[in-house]
Amino acid sequence: MAQLSTSTQSGGTRTEHLATWAANLKFTDLPEDVVQKTKDFFVDWLGCAIAGRHHPAVSAIAKFASHMGPSSGKSELVDGSLKFTTSPAFASLVNGASSHVVEQDDLHNRSIMHPRFHSTATGGVIGVAAATAHLLKLDAAQTLSAIGTAGTQAAGLWQFLMDATHSKQVHTGKACFDGIFAAYTARDGLLGTKDILEGPRAMGVALVPGTTNPEAIDQKLGTDYEVLRSSFKWHASCRHTHPSADALLKLIKKNDVAFENIESVISRTYQAAINVLGMTGRGETVHQSKFSMGFVLAVIAKKGQAMITDFTEDDLEDSELREFQQRVKMELDPEIDRVFPEKWQGTVIVTTKAGKTFTESVEFAKGDPELPLTRDEIERKAHTLAAYGGFTDTGKVNQLIDRAWNLENQKNLNGFVF
Amino acid sequence: MAQLSTSTQSGGTRTEHLATWAANLKFTDLPEDVVQKTKDFFVDWLGCAIAGRHHPAVSAIAKFASHMGPSSGKSELVDGSLKFTTSPAFASLVNGASSHVVEQDDLHNRSIMHPRFHSTATGGVIGVAAATAHLLKLDAAQTLSAIGTAGTQAAGLWQFLMDATHSKQVHTGKACFDGIFAAYTARDGLLGTKDILEGPRAMGVALVPGTTNPEAIDQKLGTDYEVLRSSFKWHASCRHTHPSADALLKLIKKNDVAFENIESVISRTYQAAINVLGMTGRGETVHQSKFSMGFVLAVIAKKGQAMITDFTEDDLEDSELREFQQRVKMELDPEIDRVFPEKWQGTVIVTTKAGKTFTESVEFAKGDPELPLTRDEIERKAHTLAAYGGFTDTGKVNQLIDRAWNLENQKNLNGFVF
Repeated sequence: MAQLSTSTQSGGTRTEHLATWAANLKFTDLPEDVVQKTKDFFVDWLGCAIAGRHHPAVSAIAKFASHMGPSSGKSELVDGSLKFTTSPAFASLVNGASSHVVEQDDLHNRSIMHPRFHSTATGGVIGVAAATAHLLKLDAAQTLSAIGTAGTQAAGLWQFLMDATHSKQVHTGKACFDGIFAAYTARDGLLGTKDILEGPRAMGVALVPGTTNPEAIDQKLGTDYEVLRSSFKWHASCRHTHPSADALLKLIKKNDVAFENIESVISRTYQAAINVLGMTGRGETVHQSKFSMGFVLAVIAKKGQAMITDFTEDDLEDSELREFQQRVKMELDPEIDRVFPEKWQGTVIVTTKAGKTFTESVEFAKGDPELPLTRDEIERKAHTLAAYGGFTDTGKVNQLIDRAWNLENQKNLNGFVF
Repeated sequence: MAQLSTSTQSGGTRTEHLATWAANLKFTDLPEDVVQKTKDFFVDWLGCAIAGRHHPAVSAIAKFASHMGPSSGKSELVDGSLKFTTSPAFASLVNGASSHVVEQDDLHNRSIMHPRFHSTATGGVIGVAAATAHLLKLDAAQTLSAIGTAGTQAAGLWQFLMDATHSKQVHTGKACFDGIFAAYTARDGLLGTKDILEGPRAMGVALVPGTTNPEAIDQKLGTDYEVLRSSFKWHASCRHTHPSADALLKLIKKNDVAFENIESVISRTYQAAINVLGMTGRGETVHQSKFSMGFVLAVIAKKGQAMITDFTEDDLEDSELREFQQRVKMELDPEIDRVFPEKWQGTVIVTTKAGKTFTESVEFAKGDPELPLTRDEIERKAHTLAAYGGFTDTGKVNQLIDRAWNLENQKNLNGFVF
C-alpha cells in the first residue's frame, strides 16, 4: 500500500505522529497559558451547557439515554427535566448537545471552512476520541485507532439551517458519544484506519475537498496550541455577525446615532458570512434569527447589546426590529475576505434618516484571541447563561465557577451539573 | 426559505412524500413477492450475523455496549463472547456490525455509487430510521424528523480499505444505532430537517455531489420495491469480483482448463470495480484478500469456489495463489462500464501456458435479481455461515431458518440470536 499511503520522511503518517504525541502528552508538558485558557473555555462551556438544558432537543436526547442506556451510572446529565445518572457516553451525548443550544460556546477562528460539513462535529469527534483515549491511558497505536474510528463516523450537514431544526445539537452530542465509542472500542481491540485525516479516501478528501493543509496535522505538535487561537462568543448570535455587530456598537457610541434615526446599514463582510447567514432567510425562529445579519444588527442598534435574553419570541414579533432588519444589506468586502479567517474584521456603513453617512470598522471581534474576555466577563456571561437555563442559585453557580478555576486539582467532576 | 427548499408541484419536499408514504404503509399493502424476497434476505442476513460474531471488532463493540448500556434489556446480541441482553439500540449496534464482517450480506445493485462514502452506512441509517419510526408508529411529521436526524448523522469513509481495519463493521453497526437514535428522539420531540436527501446543503450535495437523481426519492412509492432489485452474494469476496469470478468458473468448466495450466487472466470490468479493488493492493489480510481481483480469481481457479472457508490465513500464505494473483490484470471494458450498475457484467480472457486463449462473459452475477439464489441455496449458505461462526447445532439453525420463513407470523424475535 506504499503507493496509497501518505507517509512522511520520518516514517508513519502525519496522523500517526499526532496520535503518538497525544498518547504521550503529560499535563506538566502544557504551558501555563494553555492550561489557563482551557479553564476559561471550560467555565464558558459550563454556562452554555446549563443554558441549553431545557431545550426540547436536549430533553428528547435525555429520554433516549433513559430508554437505551443504563438506569444509573457514574456520570451526570445537565438535562433539566429528567434527573438520573448514566454512563459516560450518554452523559456526553446529552451534555454535548445542551452546550450547543444557545450558540454561545467557543470557536476556533481559523477552522471556519467551506460549509459542506459542520466542523464542530466533524473535528469534534476527533478531539473527543483523542481526549478519551488519553483518559483511558491508551498507547499510541490504540490512540491512532481511536482517531481513525472517530473520523470514519464524522458527520453533520448544514441543511438544518434551512428549517430551524435541532440537528446542530445532535451534531455536538453525537460527536461526543461517537468519540467515546471510538476510544473505548480502540482499547478493546477495534482497529481504526491509520490515515483518517489526509489519506486518499479520508476526511480531507471527502469532507473538505481541495482545501486542506496537511502540514497542520503534525508540524507544530507541542509548540503551537490552537486553544490559544480560539475565541469566546460575547454576543448570542452566530459568530459571523459579531464583527459587524461590534463595528455598529462602536459607530453608534462614537457618533451618538439613535436606533430610530438609522435609515440603512451596509455590513461589509467576508464570503463565508454571506454563505452561512444567507441560508436562514428572514429568521422565522429564535434560533434562525441569530443567523440573520439584519435581525442581529437591529437588536444591537435598538438594545445596545445582543445577549441571550435579547432574542425571544417577543423580539421576533417586534415590528421595529423587523423593519430595521429589512434595511440591512450584506456586501462582500474583498479586503476583509482576503484576511479571513486569520482576522474576523467587520465594517458597517450607516446612513441616517437625515442623510448623514458614518463608517466604522473593527479589526477583531470582542472575544477573539486578540481581544479575549476577562475572567470577570467570563463569569458574568456564565451567570447570565445559568440564569437563562433556570439555574437561579447564584451561590451554587459561584461554587461551580470556583471549582472550575481550580479544575486541575479536582479529584472528579461529581456535582458539576446538578 | 421558499427560494432554498426543493418543494415539488404537489407540495412538500420529495423527502416529505417519502416519509408520509412510509408512515402510512401497512403490511397488507406489500406485494407477496416483496414479502418473500425480504424474508430471503433476512435468512441470508441471519447467517451473516452469526458468521461474524467472534470477530474482534464485534467483541470490542459488545464490550462498549456492556460498559455504556444497560446491564440487561429486551434485545439479544449475536456476539459470541459476552452473553447478555441489552436495549434495542445497543443490540442493533452489535448485530449490525456482526452481519457485515464476512462480506456475504446482500446489496442493492444500482446503489453502487462514487466511492466517496460507504453507501451501506449512509443509506442504511435512513432505512433504519424509517423502519424504527414505523415500529414506533410515528406519524408522517415525526417520520420526516427521524429521516432528517438520520441523514445528518450519515457517515462512513472508504479510507479503511487501505489498511485493513474494522471500520466497515463500525459503519453498519453505527448506522443501526444512529437510525434508532433518530427515530426515538423524533418521537420525543427532536426536529429533523425536512429536506435531508436533496436539499442544497443535504446528503446528495455533500456526499455524492453531481450524481444524484432526485426523482428516485418519491416517484414510484408503493409501486416499485427496490428489494426486488437487490442481490445475494454467493462468493465470499467483494461483490465487484463476482462477475469475473462467475465468468472464470464458466470458462474453466466449459473448456476444462486446469489451475496450473493458466498463464494469465485479464478481467474486463467496469470502472467502479477498478476503483474499489485498486485500493487494497496485494491483500495483506484475509479481509483485504477478498478485495483483490487477482487473489479472488486465483481462489476460484484453484478451488472451483470462493466460499467463506476459502479465505484463510493459510490461503494468504499459499504461494500458488500468490503467484497466480500476480498474473491477473483488470482492464476497463467500456461496454461493461456503460451498463453498470444496471447490469453487473463480467468478461475474462484466459491465456494458457500452452498459448491458447479463451474468452468468457456473464451478463449477470449469480445472486443478481435476474439470477437469484433458490431457497435451498440460501439455506445452504446460511448453514455454512453459521458453522463458520461456531454455531454448530444444525438443528437449531434449521429452527431459526424455519422461524424466519414464517417471519410475518412471529410474535417477537426472542431466541433468534442465542
